[in-house]
Order: sequence, then C-alpha cells, then structure tokens
Amino acid sequence: MTPAFDPIAARLYDRRRLQRWIDQWLDEDCGHGDLTTEIMIAPEAEGRFAVTARQPFTLAGLEIAEAVFRRVNPARADEIEWAAEAADGEQVAPGAVLARVAGPARLILTGERVALNLLQHLSGVATLTAAFVEAVSGTGVAVADTRKTTPGLRGLEKYAVRCGGGRNHRLGLDGGIMLKDNHIAVAGGIGPAVAKARAAAPLLTKIEVECDRLDQVDAALEAGADVIMLDNMNNADMTEAVARVGGRALLECSGGVTLQTIRGKAETGVDVISVGRMTQAAAAVDIGLDADAG
Amino acid sequence: MTPAFDPIAARLYDRRRLQRWIDQWLDEDCGHGDLTTEIMIAPEAEGRFAVTARQPFTLAGLEIAEAVFRRVNPARADEIEWAAEAADGEQVAPGAVLARVAGPARLILTGERVALNLLQHLSGVATLTAAFVEAVSGTGVAVADTRKTTPGLRGLEKYAVRCGGGRNHRLGLDGGIMLKDNHIAVAGGIGPAVAKARAAAPLLTKIEVECDRLDQVDAALEAGADVIMLDNMNNADMTEAVARVGGRALLECSGGVTLQTIRGKAETGVDVISVGRMTQAAAAVDIGLDADAG
Amino acid sequence: MTPAFDPIAARLYDRRRLQRWIDQWLDEDCGHGDLTTEIMIAPEAEGRFAVTARQPFTLAGLEIAEAVFRRVNPARADEIEWAAEAADGEQVAPGAVLARVAGPARLILTGERVALNLLQHLSGVATLTAAFVEAVSGTGVAVADTRKTTPGLRGLEKYAVRCGGGRNHRLGLDGGIMLKDNHIAVAGGIGPAVAKARAAAPLLTKIEVECDRLDQVDAALEAGADVIMLDNMNNADMTEAVARVGGRALLECSGGVTLQTIRGKAETGVDVISVGRMTQAAAAVDIGLDADAG
Amino acid sequence: MTPAFDPIAARLYDRRRLQRWIDQWLDEDCGHGDLTTEIMIAPEAEGRFAVTARQPFTLAGLEIAEAVFRRVNPARADEIEWAAEAADGEQVAPGAVLARVAGPARLILTGERVALNLLQHLSGVATLTAAFVEAVSGTGVAVADTRKTTPGLRGLEKYAVRCGGGRNHRLGLDGGIMLKDNHIAVAGGIGPAVAKARAAAPLLTKIEVECDRLDQVDAALEAGADVIMLDNMNNADMTEAVARVGGRALLECSGGVTLQTIRGKAETGVDVISVGRMTQAAAAVDIGLDADAG
Amino acid sequence: MTPAFDPIAARLYDRRRLQRWIDQWLDEDCGHGDLTTEIMIAPEAEGRFAVTARQPFTLAGLEIAEAVFRRVNPARADEIEWAAEAADGEQVAPGAVLARVAGPARLILTGERVALNLLQHLSGVATLTAAFVEAVSGTGVAVADTRKTTPGLRGLEKYAVRCGGGRNHRLGLDGGIMLKDNHIAVAGGIGPAVAKARAAAPLLTKIEVECDRLDQVDAALEAGADVIMLDNMNNADMTEAVARVGGRALLECSGGVTLQTIRGKAETGVDVISVGRMTQAAAAVDIGLDADAG
Amino acid sequence: MTPAFDPIAARLYDRRRLQRWIDQWLDEDCGHGDLTTEIMIAPEAEGRFAVTARQPFTLAGLEIAEAVFRRVNPARADEIEWAAEAADGEQVAPGAVLARVAGPARLILTGERVALNLLQHLSGVATLTAAFVEAVSGTGVAVADTRKTTPGLRGLEKYAVRCGGGRNHRLGLDGGIMLKDNHIAVAGGIGPAVAKARAAAPLLTKIEVECDRLDQVDAALEAGADVIMLDNMNNADMTEAVARVGGRALLECSGGVTLQTIRGKAETGVDVISVGRMTQAAAAVDIGLDADAG
Repeated sequence: MTPAFDPIAARLYDRRRLQRWIDQWLDEDCGHGDLTTEIMIAPEAEGRFAVTARQPFTLAGLEIAEAVFRRVNPARADEIEWAAEAADGEQVAPGAVLARVAGPARLILTGERVALNLLQHLSGVATLTAAFVEAVSGTGVAVADTRKTTPGLRGLEKYAVRCGGGRNHRLGLDGGIMLKDNHIAVAGGIGPAVAKARAAAPLLTKIEVECDRLDQVDAALEAGADVIMLDNMNNADMTEAVARVGGRALLECSGGVTLQTIRGKAETGVDVISVGRMTQAAAAVDIGLDADAG
Repeated sequence: MTPAFDPIAARLYDRRRLQRWIDQWLDEDCGHGDLTTEIMIAPEAEGRFAVTARQPFTLAGLEIAEAVFRRVNPARADEIEWAAEAADGEQVAPGAVLARVAGPARLILTGERVALNLLQHLSGVATLTAAFVEAVSGTGVAVADTRKTTPGLRGLEKYAVRCGGGRNHRLGLDGGIMLKDNHIAVAGGIGPAVAKARAAAPLLTKIEVECDRLDQVDAALEAGADVIMLDNMNNADMTEAVARVGGRALLECSGGVTLQTIRGKAETGVDVISVGRMTQAAAAVDIGLDADAG
Repeated sequence: MTPAFDPIAARLYDRRRLQRWIDQWLDEDCGHGDLTTEIMIAPEAEGRFAVTARQPFTLAGLEIAEAVFRRVNPARADEIEWAAEAADGEQVAPGAVLARVAGPARLILTGERVALNLLQHLSGVATLTAAFVEAVSGTGVAVADTRKTTPGLRGLEKYAVRCGGGRNHRLGLDGGIMLKDNHIAVAGGIGPAVAKARAAAPLLTKIEVECDRLDQVDAALEAGADVIMLDNMNNADMTEAVARVGGRALLECSGGVTLQTIRGKAETGVDVISVGRMTQAAAAVDIGLDADAG
Repeated sequence: MTPAFDPIAARLYDRRRLQRWIDQWLDEDCGHGDLTTEIMIAPEAEGRFAVTARQPFTLAGLEIAEAVFRRVNPARADEIEWAAEAADGEQVAPGAVLARVAGPARLILTGERVALNLLQHLSGVATLTAAFVEAVSGTGVAVADTRKTTPGLRGLEKYAVRCGGGRNHRLGLDGGIMLKDNHIAVAGGIGPAVAKARAAAPLLTKIEVECDRLDQVDAALEAGADVIMLDNMNNADMTEAVARVGGRALLECSGGVTLQTIRGKAETGVDVISVGRMTQAAAAVDIGLDADAG
Repeated sequence: MTPAFDPIAARLYDRRRLQRWIDQWLDEDCGHGDLTTEIMIAPEAEGRFAVTARQPFTLAGLEIAEAVFRRVNPARADEIEWAAEAADGEQVAPGAVLARVAGPARLILTGERVALNLLQHLSGVATLTAAFVEAVSGTGVAVADTRKTTPGLRGLEKYAVRCGGGRNHRLGLDGGIMLKDNHIAVAGGIGPAVAKARAAAPLLTKIEVECDRLDQVDAALEAGADVIMLDNMNNADMTEAVARVGGRALLECSGGVTLQTIRGKAETGVDVISVGRMTQAAAAVDIGLDADAG
Repeated sequence: MTPAFDPIAARLYDRRRLQRWIDQWLDEDCGHGDLTTEIMIAPEAEGRFAVTARQPFTLAGLEIAEAVFRRVNPARADEIEWAAEAADGEQVAPGAVLARVAGPARLILTGERVALNLLQHLSGVATLTAAFVEAVSGTGVAVADTRKTTPGLRGLEKYAVRCGGGRNHRLGLDGGIMLKDNHIAVAGGIGPAVAKARAAAPLLTKIEVECDRLDQVDAALEAGADVIMLDNMNNADMTEAVARVGGRALLECSGGVTLQTIRGKAETGVDVISVGRMTQAAAAVDIGLDADAG
C-alpha cells in the first residue's frame, strides 16, 4: 500500500542551488562534450520518449529529472516538452509511464543518464523510507532521516525521505544544536552545556541533547532541552524515559534501527525514530527511457 | 580473500576538481555555520581520533577523508596531523584502525560527517566490486563499471571500483563513442555509422557498437569497431560471438549481471563484463571516528 | 561602559564562505589591477602600519581585516605579520592601536580600503547595538537583530551584533518558521497554520507566530508556537501578553523600537526585543591605517 | 526640492555582474531554502503587491529590486509582472507607490527581504547625496563619492550617488592613479612620481596628486597632474590654490566635509568636493511591500 | 578552392562550458562596465549591422559570435536578431556579408570587440588549416592538430581546425594515453609500458607510443599500441615504417611540419600528420562590423 | 638589439584573477585527469627540467609559467623548485636556459603543456612588439596596443606588450571613453558628445575622440578631448594635425600600421601609434622543456 503522502511535506526547499548542482553533474558526465550525440545526431532531429518504471517503487525526483533535460542547453530549455503522468510520493507499478518527454533529440540523449541516475537513486531512497514508515504504521511515531547522506545530494535525499513519508531531522549543521558527550564534558555537565548553547545560539534554534542513560534524560529535561535523543537505549529504558518526560520535550530514538527492530522501538512511545540506512543503503530502482510511439 | 590490487590502477585521476567538490560538500553540511562546534568547542582545543572499521570491507577513499579534514579551514590545513594505518584496496577487519587524525578539535568535528559519509560510501562500492571480481576469479575476465554513478561522485566511484579490483569503462561522454540502435538507424546501418563516427571523432577515441544479435556482431567487426557490446545476449550466443570475433575486437557483456549470473557469463570467454549495480546498489559500510587515547 | 561581552557568543559561524566573499570584494575594488601600487611600489618594499581608532566605539571585525590582507595575494599570505592589540567586543578609545600589520607594502596598500571599509562598518553596527543593549541594562531583556541586513554582509553583521552584546534572531529563511497574517489566512487560522508547519518542517526547527492582538497570542500559545512575536503592540497589551503566556513561549517585541522607546518596551517583561535599525542605520566609525614607526 | 537629475548619468554600468551578486544575496538569505514559504504557500498561489514609500526620500534601485524578484527562480522569471510607478532619481512622498509587482506568491515572498534591503539602502545613499548636492546648489561645484563603499555594493552605491545628483570619483583601483605622500617620497618628489606613473600607466588613465600645502600644488601642476586633491586644506588656502591653478588641472577638495561645512568649501571655487559619508553613514529609508488590492 | 567540409565534423562539442567562457571574456573586456556605450547610447536605441569579410578566408566561429551578442545581457538575449549569410567551413570572399545582426544598439556595441576577436582568430586558424589540408590533397592523409592551443580556447580552436578540414588528435590529457621516452624508461621498455597503461586505463582509451627509430616501431606494434607516432623521422624511415606496420596500427607523423615539407611527408603513406603551427601561428583575419543600411 | 626595458612598466596588474584563469586552463587540458601521468609516473618520482629557448626572442611570461606549475596541485605548490635564469623583457638567444624547474615529476609533466603554451605565445607577442618599437627608435613615439586581444588573455597580452617595450592603450571598456562617429552623430556633434561624456563619466576617466578629418581635430580640441585619434589619416594630414594641436591633447595614430609603414607615421610627430597586429598576428616562439642533467 502506498504510504500516506502529504504534498506539502514533499516540497523542494532549495530550487536555486539545485540548478547549479545539475549543471555540474552534466559537466561531470559530458567533459569535453558528448561525442556520440554531437557526431551522430543532427541538431534538428526530434525525439519522443517515455520515462518508464521497470519495477514497483515509491517515486521521488520526477521534477528534478525534468530540470536536467532543460539544463542540457539552457538556451533551448523551452523546446523540451515534459508531461508528468505520475507524482512524487506515489507508489508506481512496473510498466507505468512516469512522464513523457519530447524535443530536440540531442538534448534528451545527452541528459538521459544524469536524469535517470538521479531519479533511480532518489526513488530508491523514497522506497526504503516508505518501508520503514509502513513498519511503524498505526503507532503515530515519525521516522526521520540523519546527516548520513550522499555528499552533494543532501537536499534531494531529504526531499526523497519526505516523498517516502519520512521526516527531516535537520538540514545541516546550522539547523540545530546537538550536544554530545564531549560538549557536555567540556561545559561541565548537561545543565551548563544547554545554558551555554542557549545563550549563544540564534533565538529560533532548537537544542538537542544526546543521552545514554535515564539520569541524563532527567538532567536534559531539567536543563530545558527541546529534544532528547535516546542513543542506543534498550526498549525498557526508552519506555521509562517516555514516562518521565511526559511530553515536555521531543523524544528521539537513535541507533541500531532496522526494518526488524523499528516497530518494537516505536511501541515504547517515543516521538521519532531516526534511521541512517534510508539514505545510506537504498539501492537504485530500475527506470528506463524508452522510445515513445505515442 | 582480498582481491589482487594494483596500486597503479588505483590512482585518482582528477585531484584538482576533487578539492572543489569537497568545498561544496562541506558548504552543503555547514550552511550558515556549524553552530554546535563554534559555540561549544574553543578554537584552541585539540583532539585525537581514530578512524575505525566496524565491519569487514574493502577500503576506498582514505586519502579523500584526509583531504576533507584539511579543507574545513584551508588556512589551518597544516595543523591536521594524519597517519594512515591502512591503504585503499585493502581488505580490513572489524576494529581495524584505518587512520589516526589529530589537531584542532573544531576542524575535525566539523569535517567528521562529510569525511565519514564519503569513506563509508566509497568503501561500500569497493567492497561490492570486490565481490563481483571474486566471482569471476580465474576466468581472466575483467569486471567494469558503467556511467550509472551517483551524480557528483563519478570520479570517486570509478576510483572505488579500481580499489575493488574492477576496471573503468569510460569516464564520461567524452571518453569514447558508443553507437546504439538509434544512431545506427539514422546512419543507415552499422557500417555507415562506424564510418561516420570514425571520420569525425578525435583520433585517440575508440568506437563501441551495441549488438543484440550475432549478425550485428559480424557487421560491427567488419566495420572496424574497437569494442563490441553484447547487450542482454544469452550465454550460448555470447560463446558463439567470442568464436566469431576471434580477438579482433574487445567483447563486452552487458545486462542482467548479478553475483549469481556473472560467472556463467564470464565463462563464455568475453573480455569484460560491465555491472551497473556496483555503483547503484552498494550499501555504505560502517566506519566510526573514535576518541583516540593513543 | 563596555557592554558585557561573551567571547563564546562572538564566534564567527562561517569562516569558509567568508574567504570567498573577501576575494570578491578585493576583485570589486581592484578591477584590472591596483595601478598605483603596482607602478609606484616595488615588489620587495616592506611596510609597517598601525590600525588606529579615531573615535570611541565598540570593536568588531578585527580578525576579518586581517583575513583581507592575507587574501590580497594568497601565495604570499604568510608574509603578512599581524599583531592584534584589541579584541572584538571591546570598547576602544580614540588613538587606541587596534592591531599592527607589517609585510610587503604592496599587499597592505592594495588591501587597505577593503579592510577598513569592513572594520569601520562592522564596528559601527557593534557600537549601535551596544547602545541599545545599554538602554535595557538591568531588565534581563535580550536585544536581537533581524533579517534587515546589508546584502552580502549578513553573517558579518550578525557577528557584529553579538560583539555589541546583542543576540541573533535567525540567520536566514532556513533558520526557523515565521508565520504571518497571509500564512494564517491561507491555512484557516493560527491552529491549523502551526500544525501544518510543524508537520512539514525539520524536527529541530522552531515556529514563531506574528500577533497583533491578545486573542492571537492566546491562539498561538494554544497551538504550541515556540516563539510569539508581539508586532507593534502597545506596552499595556504587551504586559498583559506576558502575564497570559507565563513563560510557556518566548515573547518577542517588534516594531517601532528606538533608543528612546526600547526601555519602556523592555519593562513590559518580554523576553526579547528585535531592532532592525542596528543593521540598517549604523554609521561607519572612523579608523585609520597609519605608518607605524614602532 | 528634487535635485536636478540627468537620466544619462544614472545608468548602471555593470548589469552583468549585478545578476551574479543578486544570486549570492538570495542564497545568503535562503540557505537550505525558505522553509516558511515552501511549506505554507502553494506553488500555484498568486499575489499582487505594491512597493510603497513610508517616508520622503530620493529613489534609487527600483530596477534592481525588480531584478531580485526575477532571480528567485530564474526559470519562472517571466511570470513576474512589474510596473514601475516612479523612477530612480525622483524625490518621492510618503505613501507613494513606487512599483506594483504581481505573480507567483512564492517568488515574491522569498525575494521580498533582499529586494527591500537593497532598495532601502540605495535610496538612503541617494537621499543623503541629494542633501549634499542641495547644500552647494548654485555654486557649480560637483559632489563626488569615494572608495569608502560597502564591500559588494560598490557599483550600486556609486549608481545611487548618481541618482542623488552626485558624481563618481573612480570606480576602483584600476580607474586612475592616485599619488600620495608615500609614493612621492619613494619616487623622490612630485615631479618624478608623476613622470613614473605617466610612463607606465595605460594611456587613457588620469593621474591625481594629493597635496597638503600650496607648494605641493605648484609642483603637481608643473608635473602635469590631471587632478589635484587639496587634502584637509583650509578654505583660504583652497581659494589661493584655485587662483594659482587657473583651470589647468581639476581641483578636488577632500576631508572633513559635512552638510555644515560643504558650502564654505564650495565657495572657494574648487571643481569638486568628495564626501565619504554619503556611502558610509546613510540610514536605510522606510519602504514596505503591501498587499495590493488594485 | 574551398576544402571539402563535412558539417558533421564541424560540430561544437561543448556548448555548455562555452557559454561560461563567453561570460568571462565579456567580463574581461567590460570590467566595471562599458562606460562609452552606457553613457552615449540610449537603452531604447536600435541598430542594424553587417558582419563583413575584408579579405578571403575560411570561416569559423559564426555561431560563437552570435552567442557573444546574446550573452551581453542574458535577460535581453531574445532581442538580438541574427541572420547568418555564410556557414562555418566556407571559403569567403572579401566584401562578403557573413551575418546580419540587429537589435538593441547597446548590446551589439558592447559585444562587438569580443565577438570579432573570436571570429577573426578562429577563422585565422581555419584558414591556415585549410592551407595544410590543401597541400596534401589527393594523398588521403589526414592533417591533425595538437595540444599546442591557446589556453582557454582549446575547444574552439579544435573546432576551427575541423572547419578548415583538419582532424582532432585528442581533446585533452584525458583523451588518450601518450607514451614517451621517460614513461618507457621508467616502465622498462615499450612492451611493459603499453601493458601497464592498458591495464589501468579506461577500456575505451587508445594508447599511442612515440617512436624515434624503426626498432621502436616494431616494439610498439608488437605491444599492441593503437597509434604509433613517428617523431621527427625522415621520409625514408617513415616509408619503411608504413611498410612494416601494414595497417595494423594508425601511423602519425609529427615534427618539423611546414607548408613546404608536408606533402613529402604525406607521400610516405602515413595515416595522419599532426601540425602544431595551425593553432600557434595563425594570424587573425580581417572582419568588420559595419552599419547595415539594408 | 634588445629594446629598452623598464621593469616598472612590466608589472602584472592583476595577479589575483590570473590564478583563477590558470586553474581553468589546467582544467581545460586535464579534463577527467592526466591519464598518462597518473598511470605511468609514481607519485614520489622527482624530475629536473630546463626551460630552454630554441630561437631568438624577447621573453615574456616566465613568472606565469612558474605559477602554472605551482597550481597543478595547490596542496603541493611548495615542492616546486623554480630558478629563473632570465627576466621578462630580455632578448634571449637560442639555447639559453630561461629557468630550471625541479620537483614532483607528476606536477611538472601535467603542467608542461599549459606552461609552455602561455610562455610561447606571450613571448611571441613581446617579440613582435619589440620589432615595432625598434622600427620607431629615436622618434620618441610610443607604440601602443589595442583591445584586439585574445579573449581570456587580455591582461597577459598587455603585459607582454609592455615587456616588448610597448605601451597599453586602455585595459578594457571601463578604462576610458572612446567617442566614434555614431556617438557623435547621436549627440549632435563633437562638442555636445564630449560634454555629455564628461558630465557622466567618473572624474578620473579620459575622453578620446576618433577623427577622420582635420576639421574634426579642431572640434575635438575645442571640446576639450584628452586624446585625439587620427584614424586612417595620411601622413601629410597627420603632420598638419600635430601642428594644429600643439601639444594641447595627446595625438594617437591608428589604422594600417605595419612594420613597413610605422616609421613614416612616427615621423609626423604624433605621440603614439596603436597597432592591433601585435596581439593578433604574433606567432608562438619555440621553447622546450628539457631534462636537466645539472
């Protein structure tokens, strides 16, 4: 079953920078130029193609694939016709046409590999996310990503997580304060550490404290932490932590999360479970660019 | 067993551009700044850490992780002490220290996630490559990558493939001519297509022709193709193709290659088997940055 | 009196990007080259200069001025000798030497204008901030900046605000959710608006609601807003809002804040007062680069 | 009264580079993305707004504000409708609508702050310039800017000066030779210094000599200086300098110029008076973006 | 007579990067802005011009000149009307109109010099290439370029060579392996050197061996070199080399090639002759931009 | 005989931007990487080479060649040892060692072609310039360049002109006002055109007027032009123009200047003769990088 998908949550946050990354990715593939296409395909040749699913998966990145084709030659961007036949966040079936693209054959052939590489990878991330979300269905627990993303694809992978029904933790090192053992030791305890962070951070920044033990949870709560991470804690302790905190801070479970273990962790009553594997172990799904008779 | 590893083949081809990608990846993670580190860690604090394997794998990217730490603040690059204790291409055991890094704690903590994300991903690619290479051991067949790489990581993933004992097919669209059905149809046959490509391409560029059937193999050979791709051909036909070509062109097997099917394909006598999954389905391996007492 | 200055709060968050801005600012001033210096000053000539205050002010940006001199010719960065004799956040007197700089005369003369322009402007911002902070002294209220900063100088001006004893509100549009009238109208009320934002935003992101009336304050509090902005509200209503909220959300006063009005607003008991003028109306202070006999 | 404004003099010299600065300024504000707008405003929502003056001032930068809105998403630039209702260089009254902007609400809301920050600052510079120009009205003396500009805004601030009726001195270090004490000392006198500069500089480059005393003015004139700067000279000496030079070189008065002192200096008969404060001490004017019923 | 010209071979390989080079070249010429045009020409002024040949030559770069005019102000690119009246690769006569350009006079006047500088230089390269090609007409030998190109113009000069009827050798250091004396000495002979290169290079990369003597030619052939360079070999030895190789490798003649010597070298039967002077000693041809009554 | 060479005039104006151009030129040549060097040369291999003249010429660009080698791998810049044995502006003999370079063989081999391409081209420009300067020796007339330079090499070619004893006209479109027929026609005559330019241009900007006839020279002089260009005027008219102007403006002769015609033009008494061919028709000189036993 397709996981519930809120289109609002699936927005792309940074379209501006995306365009520049796409340019670099095209440069990376083209180098001195796409010799085959330039030599073999006439500039005036037109083509019609269908982006087609070859396995079932949760779709993510369709709009990005479109953007790739339009960036191959920015001066001819308007000549690319693109008709989406599916939407990000949808569960698609093998054989489903995701989009039809038509226009100058050169542009489409040169952009094909970069467009597909992105679409296959992001849909892979969305599909794995959807499996984790499904595994906790009915518990009300959120599944969140981490900063364990592929360098250069942070924004897109976090978008794919949203397409799969997951939540974003923070977008980068500027998106929140995360206090760990070493910060706490240097500051002289959880209380002073939180106070120091609160005094220096921008006003709209939340503070999270990483805890291994229940007494640390108490201290973090007292210090006014906004979020408390239960790091590799067992389910019994997590259940106890939920009781002690009583909704006064957000509780995040982290560490050792797999499709097998996640439901048990969710049933402890924590608010959110963060999963690094969604962005580190998702296999690309199979999508092709076929000639389109239609 | 560790696959045979030729350090010569493991060279990084493009160090210059790598440095700029690293800068962008650090920017991507840092955004407006690493709030936690800047607020909680004093500029003069020093730290010592060990990069440690938490599972067995084939290592790739150690020098790149080092480069990340040195780029966090280029003006202080010299203050990072780095001592490698393993080499790319090596099979490492859980618990093995890969490198020790010491210096300003701020630089190491800010760079940690980007460095580990790269090292974990590239070692994942090398490890999966090594499995494919192992699967054809003794056949003399080469295992090659494709252009199905993660956008932005093309050069590094192709390097990781070499670390795992694989070969590179081409580095980008400028690294060879690849003639497919549509090019051949437009040109009026395999012969005219190869002739057209040969006449226009740079002199040091090889031409590959994609063939589905044995009669196409004959035509490609006659046309003087440098490499002939046997695309999704069954093993019997591939065996026949090997016989017909008799070493006059390089024969590449492509399509439907898995760890289960690769040995059968290798035993047909083709020269090289290309595998998209090595760069599309490799899970990140587990590597940590631990405080280093030593 | 010098405002209390916490060195921790005065950290520069993004040193990496700063270096690139400096390069652009030097390019902007140099154009095709610094004709006067290149023609009149021999490459081997050395100079010694003192950066000197010509009026009283709160210092901000000394380290940035140093960075400018080192970027004039990155290959000779090490030849610049820089000795700070004051620290950011300090109140300095006319005639005070802030730093001594020595090295290749060409580098210092070419960098002089950009270095001084930055130092004079940032110290101007810190000085005006310190005046606002002084005006609320003893009330425990924080003075915060806004996004009304000079384009290109956001990070530096927010740093200067910290040097003057102020706080940062958010660093950019990605540093928090700010719900205004139009967002609330579209969502169908404060409750639905906050819920929608909470469901889609990264977990570590705070949500602020802009309120004109006390009933909106009640609604925002009930909706679970992290921060409530009292927008152009009179002091009586603000006092009432403080009572109603009772510490369950951060209360920010905004609008019409001057050196004359700020103390009255602070005495209402709000937590923070944001002031656009600190970054929009600060005049540059007078600082010179004098030949240094010493 | 509105100062005389010549549209020719108000041209923007470098539109090309401006576009890239705007992109950076938008990046600076957006960071990982404009969370509020992306989450709360639907992509298809349209809006109509009026850019409105909230105080009297001399307008500068209207075309630049328009450019900002068009760069928020370059692929949708054409969807922004912009109707100017005032022109740069005009004196506007409170409540005046400067321009109407309509189109995708997301683009306008995301660009609002950067557009207003620029427009408010540049109009502030133009307004202060106009006051200096008004103060010398009838004397025929030109008021010129300096290189004391905000880093990154050089070209725009110099444009704003022209909008206020001022003149530009030079655009950067490549726009003329400026000989000061140290250059003259190294060269062995004003004569040799000018000769050395003349021999090495591009043919179309003017040479200015900074003079503190009347005998230096004589020497500079004899050496063939194109422009002579009277640096912090009293009005009596300046009057004498005007008489001695007799129109054979341009005479520039510099130092200690305020709205109070400028007229006296102008009445000495110098050709131009340069004023650093126009670009260093101009407060932003108040301009809003209001919902536009019309 | 115009050399045979295959439009397929005259394709531009890398349009994407070209656009960025053009931007830089316009920046280089404009600096802070085109003062003359901005001041003297009204924004609404229109102009019509003819790009006109003032001597006979082989044309190259017409499309690039057009691109320059369109990049002067990217926001107004569509207002440039361009009508080509000749095609790259054509031999044109003095007085011939190559193209007509009309549109905003400012854009055309600001872009004029960069557009002409490129067109004149590239046509110079094509013209000299055509002379070398003509000198070997009837022999079937190809004339190829080298990496001795003007930095920044590599792709364009190699395109101009194709316009003149020449061939490209390789596009850069990534376009083939070239083994010289020092590589061979380090590897321990031609055989090991070729083997080492073959084992490590991407599969579609050709290997060329530089040979001074006939015994080296034998060794290179046996080692399986794809291309053998006969470096400064006399014609008798080259004739012998052709006989020994018998078509089993491509034979390239290099060194001391002039318009006087090339035919003798061609008659030895080598496959290709490479000529550095085509890109190092071509004088710009004379082309003007005239007011167009038409 | 070596032309008189003033080291002051040979300064490089813009070292900052040069470094970025060098990076791009290395990228252009390296593409995905220098395959030959990376595969065949061990990272630890060292080499010693001599940059050697193979014909007589005037040297220009030696410091730039050094910079290229240092930019191949910026992290190892310090390992390049460079010892200049000649200086820019010198006339060198065949066989002369210009510089010795030692260090990591990889860096030197990868940078070789870019370094030599620059050095050969710039020395070619200096050599041709020196011939023009020699042709007018004793007349006191300056030889100047134009904006007819190779895109991307403006600054370097203008530097090479100075190395050959020539003068620079202007560095770009921002370095002076140049009034031609169309500007004059639009403005309503030479007088109004100069007045309009003077009123709007930065104060340190000179104004030049292009004249075909003597009456135009009179008008330009009266209008206060700083420089008057005699465009394709015959020698008799130029002699008359010199008499009429009497030193009140700089007189520039332009058009149809060759090594044969330049002396006659110089003897008319003009101040400067501008020559486009120095930067448009200079052939690269022959320089090699030889293994250095020493």
